[in-house]
Amino acid sequence: MSWVVLFTLQRSNFMLKIYFAGSIRGGREQIDIYQKMITHLKTFGQVLTEHVGEANLTDKGEKGLDDSSIYQRDIDWLKSSDMVVAEVSNPSLGVGFEIAKAIEFQKQVICFYRKQQDKRLSAMIAGCPDVNVFNYDDFENFIGKFDSVFNNDISNLK
Amino acid sequence: MSWVVLFTLQRSNFMLKIYFAGSIRGGREQIDIYQKMITHLKTFGQVLTEHVGEANLTDKGEKGLDDSSIYQRDIDWLKSSDMVVAEVSNPSLGVGFEIAKAIEFQKQVICFYRKQQDKRLSAMIAGCPDVNVFNYDDFENFIGKFDSVFNNDISNLK
Repeated sequence: MSWVVLFTLQRSNFMLKIYFAGSIRGGREQIDIYQKMITHLKTFGQVLTEHVGEANLTDKGEKGLDDSSIYQRDIDWLKSSDMVVAEVSNPSLGVGFEIAKAIEFQKQVICFYRKQQDKRLSAMIAGCPDVNVFNYDDFENFIGKFDSVFNNDISNLK
Repeated sequence: MSWVVLFTLQRSNFMLKIYFAGSIRGGREQIDIYQKMITHLKTFGQVLTEHVGEANLTDKGEKGLDDSSIYQRDIDWLKSSDMVVAEVSNPSLGVGFEIAKAIEFQKQVICFYRKQQDKRLSAMIAGCPDVNVFNYDDFENFIGKFDSVFNNDISNLK
């Protein structure tokens, strides 16, 4: 789905489906910002992966679902989504996998990376021609960048 | 390329091209095992990504190449490889991305995960029907499992 169509649909109260990707078993260091981001994204549409921001979801992963069921559910959500927003400050096999799958499924992908001293974003994400990467400093800065992109610059994105 | 063809080619001294995936910017905690694994894999063929095991390659990443160049080189290597071996004990955006791309490029993927207390492998890898995941304890155990798979059980792999 192109950004122009996305923009039109969003403006016509279409319920946009957003797949939010964040680290779970890779580490929950960024949980506070995931929660805030998801709350903000919900003002734009439905966040399919709202559980990623739940405080009681630890790096042990979800309870009550085996790995195959989680995988299939997440792939189905990814396929049905209109856009993918990934928080990529934390190393995560799952988030990296989901970004590549999203590209394969021809979804637009927006990555947000919070700069950290002595750390660098993976070259497979930062150097990928099929994703949009934005650096941000804090939640307010994220809001400014996301809203600007979503409301003004959508047609310029990959 | 099917495992039967791979096996036949390996037996006929065809130079098998192996893409080894390991964490770089996600953290170099497993560097010792990467080095040993790559040395072992080189007895089976050419390891395209030998630099992943180099001790002087830190989590700051490679010097002298920008992210876009690294991305394109790694994607080209991935496409040209005959098989992918991924060490997945460390969370890594790049390794997760590479595994999904390898599946898209119809490569066979073998993942090795060293169990660690209070940690679990991502459900997107452990639950993926398109990859082969093996747990291992130490390097000797890895050798035993890899050689057994490669020499005996190849036709049973995905």
